[in-house]
Amino acid sequence: MKAYCPEEFFSRSELDKVQKTRLATTLERAARSDFYGRRFAEMGIRPEAITSAADVARLPFTTKDDLRSAYPARMLTRPVSDMVRLHASSGTTGSATVIYYTRNDIDSWADLMARCMHMVGIRAEDTFQNMSGYGLFTGGLGIHYGAERLGCLTIPAGAGNSKRQLKLLEDFQVSVIHIIPSYALHLGTVKDEMGYTPDRLNLRVALIGAEPHTAAIRKRIEEVYGIKAYNSYGLSEMNGPGVAFECLEQSGMHIWEDAYLAEIVDPETGEQLPDGEIGELVITTLCREGMPLIRYRTKDLTRFIPGDCACGRTHRRLDRIMGRADDMIILKGVNIYPMQVEQVLMSIPEVGQNYLIVLERDGYLDQMRVKVEVKEEYFVEDMRELKSLQSRISSRLRDEILITARIDLVEQNSLPKSEGKAQRVLDLRE
Amino acid sequence: MKAYCPEEFFSRSELDKVQKTRLATTLERAARSDFYGRRFAEMGIRPEAITSAADVARLPFTTKDDLRSAYPARMLTRPVSDMVRLHASSGTTGSATVIYYTRNDIDSWADLMARCMHMVGIRAEDTFQNMSGYGLFTGGLGIHYGAERLGCLTIPAGAGNSKRQLKLLEDFQVSVIHIIPSYALHLGTVKDEMGYTPDRLNLRVALIGAEPHTAAIRKRIEEVYGIKAYNSYGLSEMNGPGVAFECLEQSGMHIWEDAYLAEIVDPETGEQLPDGEIGELVITTLCREGMPLIRYRTKDLTRFIPGDCACGRTHRRLDRIMGRADDMIILKGVNIYPMQVEQVLMSIPEVGQNYLIVLERDGYLDQMRVKVEVKEEYFVEDMRELKSLQSRISSRLRDEILITARIDLVEQNSLPKSEGKAQRVLDLRE
Ligand SMILES: [Zn+2]
Ligand SMILES: [Zn+2]
Repeated sequence: MKAYCPEEFFSRSELDKVQKTRLATTLERAARSDFYGRRFAEMGIRPEAITSAADVARLPFTTKDDLRSAYPARMLTRPVSDMVRLHASSGTTGSATVIYYTRNDIDSWADLMARCMHMVGIRAEDTFQNMSGYGLFTGGLGIHYGAERLGCLTIPAGAGNSKRQLKLLEDFQVSVIHIIPSYALHLGTVKDEMGYTPDRLNLRVALIGAEPHTAAIRKRIEEVYGIKAYNSYGLSEMNGPGVAFECLEQSGMHIWEDAYLAEIVDPETGEQLPDGEIGELVITTLCREGMPLIRYRTKDLTRFIPGDCACGRTHRRLDRIMGRADDMIILKGVNIYPMQVEQVLMSIPEVGQNYLIVLERDGYLDQMRVKVEVKEEYFVEDMRELKSLQSRISSRLRDEILITARIDLVEQNSLPKSEGKAQRVLDLRE
Repeated sequence: MKAYCPEEFFSRSELDKVQKTRLATTLERAARSDFYGRRFAEMGIRPEAITSAADVARLPFTTKDDLRSAYPARMLTRPVSDMVRLHASSGTTGSATVIYYTRNDIDSWADLMARCMHMVGIRAEDTFQNMSGYGLFTGGLGIHYGAERLGCLTIPAGAGNSKRQLKLLEDFQVSVIHIIPSYALHLGTVKDEMGYTPDRLNLRVALIGAEPHTAAIRKRIEEVYGIKAYNSYGLSEMNGPGVAFECLEQSGMHIWEDAYLAEIVDPETGEQLPDGEIGELVITTLCREGMPLIRYRTKDLTRFIPGDCACGRTHRRLDRIMGRADDMIILKGVNIYPMQVEQVLMSIPEVGQNYLIVLERDGYLDQMRVKVEVKEEYFVEDMRELKSLQSRISSRLRDEILITARIDLVEQNSLPKSEGKAQRVLDLRE
């Protein structure tokens, strides 16, 4: 497959080199902003003392609270008049955040986005329907600019209105969609109800992102539409979409290391974690002119997937997002993420849709209990079979989270269901 | 004032020349589309026989129904893969229409839009908040691309959410907004309720369009915000916004005649009308590659304002949109538009907000009766004063519509009020 640009197939040493140069430029630029200028001065940080990408660990983090305190313009490295775009969060209570873009920032964002889409085989000949909301939400305009850069016929459909979405899909024989996973499942139902059989559509690829989702959901989307679905990762603070994206191997999302310097840290201690361990993604922008961010705490939980990707790209791969750092449970000194538990449970065929993690105190000891719904057809009266399932779940969980949990098997639909975001953790430890 | 581009100040003869050349190119291109190819063949039209812009009158009209019948791609002059954008109407019932854009079409659209904004003094230093809905509606992305072309700091706020709109206006000291007139009035009320005093804001200019509005509404908007408001005209079939725009003189909207060949025709007969007479605006695209439209019936009522504009531009000026061609009343063989009646009434200080045009048959004769609410302070018991007001209204109306109407003066709030679009005409002639 032809590369979109040379950076896409940079070797590790080329990436290291460009990271080093661009980190230096970024620190120089950042120092010109009121916010980082003061911070560097207060902490005695001399940008010129940072001479390798690894040195980044010596720099302070930037948090969402920092963004709030720098609102509206204290992180700008240049006059407001040099900026051509801003995206602001919807906060109306004084807790808003904002990202500014220069013309070059918009340009390099479009280019990164186009690189992502090109990587999964999207070309000028494709017809692309963007089902993200436009406006201040970066998912809409971000992917729109990428598709336009590639020369796709772009349909700026926006969010919602399923009947119209389906009509557009059929009438224009759309080949690629950008869609939020939960909406993809909903639209799939409407599609089937309305009789949009596969022969009426021409879909080939879905780009899915903007909310954490499991491997099972991706697989479901692929089956419902008979297409390939690729995971997309981005956040407004890092422009929006286009930060990391799956390649055709579908084995993790390459984070573009010529544009983003990524670390995984322990959410509690802030220490860098080795490849393979789950922690909080921290990103430093390497290309942004108007408003660079140094070691931004994304709050997103993931890990670097160890080893090389079969596609040949050396940009490291992020695993799917496993929730928010705030969701982290600390039990017996071990960091546990609810999504880890979910992934284990969902890989066991007998397990149903719903589960609940209960944290309790037994004397002086913290314990984890997991209540697990068992699918009807497996919920048999044979105690031996249930016992065997119980110990299978327990041992798989121990492999993943290094904790022995008590497993309660319960009947389907017996756990409380919640609209929207499910309440998955119940902490009874006071 | 510096011109945005040479075309902005073309002389009449330069405009005539460019129109002639571009009309020829447009016809050549159009002939390559399935739709126009057949139509030209059926009607024996040879594009090469059209040798001046005035010859356009020998070509057939294109209507909304033609667009529907050509859906989804029969008007394309080139393969779909050469297109980079489409905007479709929201019709889900088989009556949808669609406009396709090549990369050059998007580029020249952005350029026309930037020219409009530049004409009223908007520059790269401005901060621009776009309150149009994004997505398939062309008002959002159309103006967005224009502002970005100029280098304004662009806030893609989208429609609605007044509290957030106001917060953005204040926090980023926005100088220019794009807003629908009725929403501008609504937002003005919220602004005052929430205590956004003039010193908190930095607004200078509003671009208003997307719905017909009176001079009084524009004036009101200017007063409410303490700014200048400029009228914008466009429609999706002609790309979207950027077709015609007011200059600083605020005396009509210059239609960019290097890009659009405009005519005003009698909605009934289709005959061209002389400058100054109200009729339906008909436009031929002169720059569009992907999907040129020949003599498109916009259904919008307006007139060419006779004479030269003080600004020195020779692109002819359209008067404000006076409603839809479908609203036209034919009485005693005369074309009358409700907006003409409204404009006369609103220019008379004693007249209140509401009125009703009643068409009735008196024996064999058609008659117009206008019920007019009089403001409370003027609704006196003195019959002589009311009689004098009555005849003043009648004579002003006659000057405008050439018909003598019966005038009923009624008390304020006595006419039926309607939510949304007011019912202004009652036709009792069977
Ligand atoms: Zn790969
Ligand atoms: Zn003028």
